Amino acid sequence: MATRSWWGWGNVEDAVTPAERQQLVDRVRAVLPDADLTFHEPPDPADLDLPPSRVPPSDLCSTDPVDRLTHARGQAYRDVVRNLAGDIGPIPDAVARPRTEQDVVDVLDHCGSNGIAVIPFGGGTSVVGGVEPRDIDAPVVTLDLRNLDRVLEVDPTSRAARVQAGVLGPELEAQLKPHGLTLRHFPQSFEFSTLGGWLATRAGGHYATATTHIDDFTESLRVVTPVGTSESLRVPASGAGPSPDRLFLGSEGTLGVITEAWLRLEAPPVHRAGASVRFADWGQAVEAVRAVVQSGLRPANCRLLDPAEAFLNAGSSRSVLVLAFESADHPVDAQLARALELCAGGEVVEGAARRWRASFLRMPYQRDAMAQHAMITETFETACTWDRFAQLHAAVTEAATAVLRQVCGVGIVTCRFTHVHPDGPAPYYGIYAPGRWGSLRQQWDEIKAAVSEALSGAGGTITHHHAVGRDHMPWYTRQRPDVFGTALAAAKAALDPAGVLNPGVLTTRSSAGPAPR
Amino acid sequence: MATRSWWGWGNVEDAVTPAERQQLVDRVRAVLPDADLTFHEPPDPADLDLPPSRVPPSDLCSTDPVDRLTHARGQAYRDVVRNLAGDIGPIPDAVARPRTEQDVVDVLDHCGSNGIAVIPFGGGTSVVGGVEPRDIDAPVVTLDLRNLDRVLEVDPTSRAARVQAGVLGPELEAQLKPHGLTLRHFPQSFEFSTLGGWLATRAGGHYATATTHIDDFTESLRVVTPVGTSESLRVPASGAGPSPDRLFLGSEGTLGVITEAWLRLEAPPVHRAGASVRFADWGQAVEAVRAVVQSGLRPANCRLLDPAEAFLNAGSSRSVLVLAFESADHPVDAQLARALELCAGGEVVEGAARRWRASFLRMPYQRDAMAQHAMITETFETACTWDRFAQLHAAVTEAATAVLRQVCGVGIVTCRFTHVHPDGPAPYYGIYAPGRWGSLRQQWDEIKAAVSEALSGAGGTITHHHAVGRDHMPWYTRQRPDVFGTALAAAKAALDPAGVLNPGVLTTRSSAGPAPR
Repeated sequence: MATRSWWGWGNVEDAVTPAERQQLVDRVRAVLPDADLTFHEPPDPADLDLPPSRVPPSDLCSTDPVDRLTHARGQAYRDVVRNLAGDIGPIPDAVARPRTEQDVVDVLDHCGSNGIAVIPFGGGTSVVGGVEPRDIDAPVVTLDLRNLDRVLEVDPTSRAARVQAGVLGPELEAQLKPHGLTLRHFPQSFEFSTLGGWLATRAGGHYATATTHIDDFTESLRVVTPVGTSESLRVPASGAGPSPDRLFLGSEGTLGVITEAWLRLEAPPVHRAGASVRFADWGQAVEAVRAVVQSGLRPANCRLLDPAEAFLNAGSSRSVLVLAFESADHPVDAQLARALELCAGGEVVEGAARRWRASFLRMPYQRDAMAQHAMITETFETACTWDRFAQLHAAVTEAATAVLRQVCGVGIVTCRFTHVHPDGPAPYYGIYAPGRWGSLRQQWDEIKAAVSEALSGAGGTITHHHAVGRDHMPWYTRQRPDVFGTALAAAKAALDPAGVLNPGVLTTRSSAGPAPR
Repeated sequence: MATRSWWGWGNVEDAVTPAERQQLVDRVRAVLPDADLTFHEPPDPADLDLPPSRVPPSDLCSTDPVDRLTHARGQAYRDVVRNLAGDIGPIPDAVARPRTEQDVVDVLDHCGSNGIAVIPFGGGTSVVGGVEPRDIDAPVVTLDLRNLDRVLEVDPTSRAARVQAGVLGPELEAQLKPHGLTLRHFPQSFEFSTLGGWLATRAGGHYATATTHIDDFTESLRVVTPVGTSESLRVPASGAGPSPDRLFLGSEGTLGVITEAWLRLEAPPVHRAGASVRFADWGQAVEAVRAVVQSGLRPANCRLLDPAEAFLNAGSSRSVLVLAFESADHPVDAQLARALELCAGGEVVEGAARRWRASFLRMPYQRDAMAQHAMITETFETACTWDRFAQLHAAVTEAATAVLRQVCGVGIVTCRFTHVHPDGPAPYYGIYAPGRWGSLRQQWDEIKAAVSEALSGAGGTITHHHAVGRDHMPWYTRQRPDVFGTALAAAKAALDPAGVLNPGVLTTRSSAGPAPR
């Protein structure tokens, strides 16, 4: 049985090996001979001075220190380096673990009546401060949904299933497999994130084109709110008023607790075709991606790596486009052939996709390992229309390079496209820079603010698939139409009159935190 | 220049010819020898006794009787037979025709301050009572957006355009054509309905699979509300909170007036492949459609006609599946070939698709012509998951047949699929029955209530793409989760505090009509 790391990504058993760590350190030292790469052990959680809980333990509610600690924040670089530094900050007073939906109702009732804030919690892999009890005056209970982890019903005819929200990715796929069905939603966090988290944050999944977000796989939702339980009609599509599901998708635990969803499934693919294409010119590569996604071909994978990203993670020193088609029904070779025709100026290469896939899954572990050597390794993402991309890319690259120089002296900025739409790409940026032990969080915050300003100023969304949480609030409130903010705040006040649900997220500060009693 | 009919569908010049009318009458008489098919002329609008307007005319506002009359209701059978009978009922006090967005703001301001209800109006083709000032105590101004009919900006790189909401389908396509782009949104009402109407009602368009609703073609929206103007960020996709656009899509003029949208466009198709497949067995045909739509092939057309529908409109006496693929980029013959392989038990036939298309466009004109002979000819539609379809179809067919027998003595019920999703079809039913002149509206209301009960009771949505309006409210409020109704009412109260926007639609009666002043 694997052990979840209390301070960093994933399982303790899967952390980087000493040899892998040495290799990473050697690679960094080769380019940054002057960096201080001293290794730092995480503190022992038993030595940390936690604030006493203001909530009594109960049958449902644990006040165990390690429980509280492991539910205090997500898995962003910002979270990991604070953990490593023993910088604990606010932690929940208790962790409630409902075993039934009625338990969820009871917790919300109790907290609403007692002025206790509630933070819904799935796998805890938020990278935006979504589950952190920051700036909340009231006591806080974190509602861990992990016990609600069953596929309750499968409809093989419609290819759909009713699933509890606390299920982890692998648990979900394991329960669907005997039915010959799959959700095929594989965010990088797949192993450690839950269905409820995906739904509440509008997560991005396996498909690079067409159906990129979990939204499109949602047939209906069941949501427990302080004023009652909402269950939308399970139909393939409806034009009856604004979509009820779309209000709860992306609501990040502020309007209610998603307890179940009917999901659209598919048969696992049996036909596959893929290739990697190398481009000497980044601009040409971007144009090729646009041509492919505007052709209507719908590749399952269409991931463009810039030269720096390709060098670090796919063994190439030029831009690489990883293309893949898949189908459960028919061969897809003709689609791949046509997509390759559209890649003008590109050259098919071997091995890049395999190397990329291997790197992709190790990245979070490597990020944490390097954080122990005071390296700043983190990502941020956005989406913009094609007409704005060149300018956004230049602005973000320039801002990131400048802030890295200022904050760290030096640094590398990489770019890849995780998803692409006919009207624009979702670029994902990586930064790699030598930090200063003791100041990593502050350094990252400066970098994050500078790049967020740049991408927001250039017309990008503050997030394509990482949600808003607490970290993106300044840019989210600027991006969101004020009128929609007014409507959302009104909906929030109606569904959560005591203001207990995830205060500080999505709705503005004025409604953050339960009203004083 | 064509003249819009004041009482029925479309243009006066395009109404059925005397020969076409005779043919229709003869066809009906062949099956219903006892039906009273006396011809009834519409009344002269000048003879109708209209209530005096309670709103003074102005530069923006017409109180002309024919203006008021032609904006009093939509284009449902229910509306047409009331017009034919000279049964006028409530009509707006004035018709405002804004020339700029500021005019829209001014009208909302004026009406909000003076307790006047506002009904946003595009092409007026609602078939659900969406634009009718029914049960409103206050004076009513209908806000006709037709002067806002321009494509304002085209982005050929991202394939998108910024378009004013009052543009009619053909006007939109004509303005896009010089740019080599198309929206390809062709509802049956295409010629007479507007972009704003499509957006406000979540209209269903050209594509039978995958991207069926206008929602999916919406990049961003601009909406004038009584508390301010909302403009969402124009990006290809975003995960930043619940989608602002999805709150306004389907809001049917109750939250604000959509004035502009950025739309996702495409290149016109140059590759096409299509075939019609005949099935001896309806169940086998349904299974074939399910296989095709679950294969991931995404036909642009995938319309199944049951034997009665095929007999009436496609010259066949068996179930017919009309299949078509199209692409601007690559040949689609292989897709068609694979789809035909999936049509187990079917037989390819010639001509059905062409005959169907010709019938499709004439249907509304024929419906109105036959209404003049007291025939009841109308449609209703829904969507359900595949596992429920057989039961829903049986229940709806049984209920419709029974109510036709009870109300009309006899009648025919037909079924087709207008759109299909991997998890379920959108069946569209037609009924044909001899009515009684003088009671057609009441007879239709009885039929409509019975079939709505049946489809709603069998797990279908009250509408897949015709919206809620006033006619669907009883079933909508039952279908919609109460909690979502609470959120929507709160959003409505926040954006439209005076309650002037389209009272009686979507939000419940308690908030219908401006508050007394």
